[in-house]
Amino acid sequence: MNISFILGLLAGFGLVIFGIISSSSSLSQVTQSFVDFPSMYITFGGAIAATVMSVPVKYLKDVPQNMKVLMKREKIDLNLYIDTIEELAKEARLKGLLVLEEKVNSMDLQDEFLKYCVMLIVDAIEPTKVRAQIENEIDCIEARHASAWKVFDTLAAFGPAFGMLGTLIGLINMLANMDTSQGADALGKGMSTALVTTFYGSMLANMVCAPISNRLKAKHDEEMIAKEMIMEGVLSIQSGENPKYIREKLNSYITYKERGSEAAEADGEKSKKSAKRGKKKSEANA
Amino acid sequence: MNISFILGLLAGFGLVIFGIISSSSSLSQVTQSFVDFPSMYITFGGAIAATVMSVPVKYLKDVPQNMKVLMKREKIDLNLYIDTIEELAKEARLKGLLVLEEKVNSMDLQDEFLKYCVMLIVDAIEPTKVRAQIENEIDCIEARHASAWKVFDTLAAFGPAFGMLGTLIGLINMLANMDTSQGADALGKGMSTALVTTFYGSMLANMVCAPISNRLKAKHDEEMIAKEMIMEGVLSIQSGENPKYIREKLNSYITYKERGSEAAEADGEKSKKSAKRGKKKSEANA
Amino acid sequence: MNISFILGLLAGFGLVIFGIISSSSSLSQVTQSFVDFPSMYITFGGAIAATVMSVPVKYLKDVPQNMKVLMKREKIDLNLYIDTIEELAKEARLKGLLVLEEKVNSMDLQDEFLKYCVMLIVDAIEPTKVRAQIENEIDCIEARHASAWKVFDTLAAFGPAFGMLGTLIGLINMLANMDTSQGADALGKGMSTALVTTFYGSMLANMVCAPISNRLKAKHDEEMIAKEMIMEGVLSIQSGENPKYIREKLNSYITYKERGSEAAEADGEKSKKSAKRGKKKSEANA
Amino acid sequence: MNISFILGLLAGFGLVIFGIISSSSSLSQVTQSFVDFPSMYITFGGAIAATVMSVPVKYLKDVPQNMKVLMKREKIDLNLYIDTIEELAKEARLKGLLVLEEKVNSMDLQDEFLKYCVMLIVDAIEPTKVRAQIENEIDCIEARHASAWKVFDTLAAFGPAFGMLGTLIGLINMLANMDTSQGADALGKGMSTALVTTFYGSMLANMVCAPISNRLKAKHDEEMIAKEMIMEGVLSIQSGENPKYIREKLNSYITYKERGSEAAEADGEKSKKSAKRGKKKSEANA
Amino acid sequence: MNISFILGLLAGFGLVIFGIISSSSSLSQVTQSFVDFPSMYITFGGAIAATVMSVPVKYLKDVPQNMKVLMKREKIDLNLYIDTIEELAKEARLKGLLVLEEKVNSMDLQDEFLKYCVMLIVDAIEPTKVRAQIENEIDCIEARHASAWKVFDTLAAFGPAFGMLGTLIGLINMLANMDTSQGADALGKGMSTALVTTFYGSMLANMVCAPISNRLKAKHDEEMIAKEMIMEGVLSIQSGENPKYIREKLNSYITYKERGSEAAEADGEKSKKSAKRGKKKSEANA
Repeated sequence: MNISFILGLLAGFGLVIFGIISSSSSLSQVTQSFVDFPSMYITFGGAIAATVMSVPVKYLKDVPQNMKVLMKREKIDLNLYIDTIEELAKEARLKGLLVLEEKVNSMDLQDEFLKYCVMLIVDAIEPTKVRAQIENEIDCIEARHASAWKVFDTLAAFGPAFGMLGTLIGLINMLANMDTSQGADALGKGMSTALVTTFYGSMLANMVCAPISNRLKAKHDEEMIAKEMIMEGVLSIQSGENPKYIREKLNSYITYKERGSEAAEADGEKSKKSAKRGKKKSEANA
Repeated sequence: MNISFILGLLAGFGLVIFGIISSSSSLSQVTQSFVDFPSMYITFGGAIAATVMSVPVKYLKDVPQNMKVLMKREKIDLNLYIDTIEELAKEARLKGLLVLEEKVNSMDLQDEFLKYCVMLIVDAIEPTKVRAQIENEIDCIEARHASAWKVFDTLAAFGPAFGMLGTLIGLINMLANMDTSQGADALGKGMSTALVTTFYGSMLANMVCAPISNRLKAKHDEEMIAKEMIMEGVLSIQSGENPKYIREKLNSYITYKERGSEAAEADGEKSKKSAKRGKKKSEANA
Repeated sequence: MNISFILGLLAGFGLVIFGIISSSSSLSQVTQSFVDFPSMYITFGGAIAATVMSVPVKYLKDVPQNMKVLMKREKIDLNLYIDTIEELAKEARLKGLLVLEEKVNSMDLQDEFLKYCVMLIVDAIEPTKVRAQIENEIDCIEARHASAWKVFDTLAAFGPAFGMLGTLIGLINMLANMDTSQGADALGKGMSTALVTTFYGSMLANMVCAPISNRLKAKHDEEMIAKEMIMEGVLSIQSGENPKYIREKLNSYITYKERGSEAAEADGEKSKKSAKRGKKKSEANA
Repeated sequence: MNISFILGLLAGFGLVIFGIISSSSSLSQVTQSFVDFPSMYITFGGAIAATVMSVPVKYLKDVPQNMKVLMKREKIDLNLYIDTIEELAKEARLKGLLVLEEKVNSMDLQDEFLKYCVMLIVDAIEPTKVRAQIENEIDCIEARHASAWKVFDTLAAFGPAFGMLGTLIGLINMLANMDTSQGADALGKGMSTALVTTFYGSMLANMVCAPISNRLKAKHDEEMIAKEMIMEGVLSIQSGENPKYIREKLNSYITYKERGSEAAEADGEKSKKSAKRGKKKSEANA
Repeated sequence: MNISFILGLLAGFGLVIFGIISSSSSLSQVTQSFVDFPSMYITFGGAIAATVMSVPVKYLKDVPQNMKVLMKREKIDLNLYIDTIEELAKEARLKGLLVLEEKVNSMDLQDEFLKYCVMLIVDAIEPTKVRAQIENEIDCIEARHASAWKVFDTLAAFGPAFGMLGTLIGLINMLANMDTSQGADALGKGMSTALVTTFYGSMLANMVCAPISNRLKAKHDEEMIAKEMIMEGVLSIQSGENPKYIREKLNSYITYKERGSEAAEADGEKSKKSAKRGKKKSEANA
């Protein structure tokens, strides 16, 4: 569960509703002013209609799937991937590349992309081709992911536009029918109704669509970093590099702090003077 | 027929019209307030005039053609292309590249670009030149496609601008002639008329031009992915790669789900343990 | 003559003026409301002053020249260039590269850039250097062209800004001197005058500067495609490629439709079955 | 201490508060008009909630750390780095690369990144791999840094959006309850309260978030230049270049003025005729 | 002296002041309405404070220096550079590269960057390293120059933001204290004062900061073209190319018109038939 997203959503709506209630005279007035179905049809309906016109049907079909991804997927633990790749590298050194297929299927970490990459090197394809193919795979994944947030970006752009359209419609009608004999009170009510669509459009964009789009992009970025790291790791395994050196290389993808603790955990006695680490490795590599 | 586009268009206009009617006093008032020919001349006329000034005539001449493309073209089935390319690859392995010319002309899938690419390898041009030429062809197609949405992007930018210009004209005239002896009702009517141009401009941009431009871009993106995939496939055929391996490579362009079903369909017994697939292929490749 | 530009300009101004007149009470009122010299000084004067501050004098000096280019230059006929390059290629095959100098000077198509490129290969400079030099020439032309629309982009940005400044000045003065004893009519007139500068700024940007800038960019894009095609063609001539193959290669720069008719015209009997074309060419190339 | 940031913050808030007080009738009125808790909940609460929804929790956890970086880190002295690298280069020439490990740990300048780079060359990894690894390290640092300002950029975007939302809520409620019998005074008070949220949102964006984000980016840029310089320097050390030439090369990263003074300080007698410097170096290099 | 900049500045301010005076009732009213110190503190003070928070102190310290550059530096004469480089090329051909050091110091054109480049080839560093080093030098100059306009871009962004903040403060205070018994005149005065900050902010951005930033960028672009041309020229000298050919190559950086006159001036008799030029050169090169 993506708790921070849900908490933010609840808090945001709670605060806006609290703000609405605290600045209005009575609850019945709130529902009267802020719940207006024709305004909803124009704003939400119009924005959704324009979005349906804008994006291929396929993108819309993927929305439920993407929402599930947004809600469920846990944080990616890069350290776990580094451990796994180091383990695979050790295995490959001892028993050759062919054994990796079995190994990767029996591991705790069940990652489709890692398996895909490992299969490529098991298939004994030459390194430059493997890199090209994995990079192409990543590009294609990127293109597919982009369709997820394009829907919400489009909706976030049309929301305020149709909100303003609704307000214009309300204003035009109100001004055309203006009857000063009814007093300014009626005028105020008309304006109030006209402005509700702008409120709806702004809420749709800022409270729902923009945060979803932002979070999907952030999740995508995290995932891309992991995928890039896996690619580098697997290519290093293929070229037969030292498992320790591969870990060192992949450490670039995590912060200094995470590296330190990780290294300490992994090779206890070295943790005192990290400078020594480099030298020993150099001997191993030479 | 691009059904989702047409449904979106009808729903969008329907909702806006419904919103207009439901918030106005009478139908005759609606036509009086929302149908104003001078306002249309300024907004639509001005925006179209500025667009005609902005883009070459050629772009405008292509608009009907582009609208037809937007309306008619069906979704691109990448799996069909992958099947076709695999078939061509098998044929080329058995009978040589020269036979592909006949083959591609007798196939179900009639795709101009695929034929173009196949002709290049039939002509025995060297691989790097073929790639350069196909990439150039793709770039040129991209440049031509861009002219399609540039017209609508320009119109979408000028629509609201001329809408605001019309509102300014209406306001300036109204304020200059303001006669408070006529009461605020007349003022209201003046304002109402002035705002109609902003409404027109916003509708032109958000209900028509932006969705058309967005959809044309989305269709273009889809097509470019297909073209890129065809290029990679044809180049793989030229370099004599294994048909199975070519399919595997092109699978990057489709989702994991589509791949699975495709593979299952194609080579039945392998579908149980997908891990085996990789290994067998590696033997075939070695 | 760039007829579409002039028609758009006339139609745009015509429609706006028609809109102004049709929404105002009398013609004398129109001139009174919409022609205000101090407002012009602030909006046009201010925007031009800020533009003069923003761009080098050289850019401003080139404006008349650029306007002439915008108005006069005809559409670029890529087919004519392809024909010319094919002719040059044939000549070069028969009589060697040195003869091209005379040939290019005696041809119908008098294009400075084509001559420049031909001279480079006549001078027997090595291919990679020729490409580098032509690419550098294109980059430099691009940089010079960009100065043309930068002036209008800058003016289009400052127009509305100084329009708003003028409206602010008008509003501040009006509000400071507000004398309710004169009635709301005077207030209306003041507001009307204040808004005229916003109208001017918006017209300057949307009716004049943005379309000019857009069209200059569109003309530049067309020209760049032609230049790139010439470069590819001339480099192909230098490397001694088959004239037919060169035409085929350059065909990427034009649409399928234009290609077809061109090819049909050039080599009559082949036009029936376009598939045959490829094969014959392959024999010629082999 | 980042004095200019704190001074700017204090001055900015001071000036705004001074402006508020000087334009209001009494201090009690100020607190009444500008301190409104429900408005704060909507604007700050809503913007923060939308930001929490938009960014991964990890980014938020790093905020205190990033604020500390913003506040504490001193200006980077590139000259000091150049001196250090020159010293390391001299040491490496005399005693070999292996001695650098001890040297870099005993130096005044304790820079993690410099140590990291030095370790790589001590480990005798081949130059192209070292460059690739350091560049990857820099890219990863860049990606981590970006998360710092993304939080503030997101908050700066949502601040004004929720400010406007709050104003819309206030206006809708006020207009719906408008009671002209209470006089325009009550109306004014309502408007005043409605506008406070826009004020809050604008302050949050322009006085707090945008400056923090800008400064974090500026600090990052400075740091990246230093890191790039260190990389170039360390790679030059590895390829055994002349220490004087390395200094000359790294001098590109600092201004002519700083270079002059630096050179003068370092090699006294040469400072008179800088032209001579080049010649002597050329002899040493030859 | 950068006359066009100063003329633009004077004309712009003159026109705005003229517009202010011509639309106001009396001069004393102008000073009363448009000179308001608390408004200045909020707008200018706030914008400057936010800019100080946003950029490193170093950038601010460089402002006077950058203003001097903006005001004083003359237009760059590329022809003069081409002449100089041709002269250096001739000298190098006759007497070798080592003599260039003396030559470049004794020349009329005293350009630090040209000297820097010449020194690098005098030092007999290998061509690819020279190119890398000059390109790095150019990149570093670019990064330093960017700090010049970043200050003004930041100020131009914060100006209108703090102007609007000031107007919000004014409006909130005015509306909170609204006393309709004082009549609408007082209300008007309050609004007038509130709007002055928006006016200040807009002037700061559009009349001062944006033009300065634009001009600095334009100057930078011109300088970068010159630097790039110098680099190409000096590298051609190093590779021992024909001085005439070097001139021909560098001619890409200037317009056809400038080239013609230059060439005519330099090699009189050739100017009649420019076609001949190419051929003769080809013989010299062969």
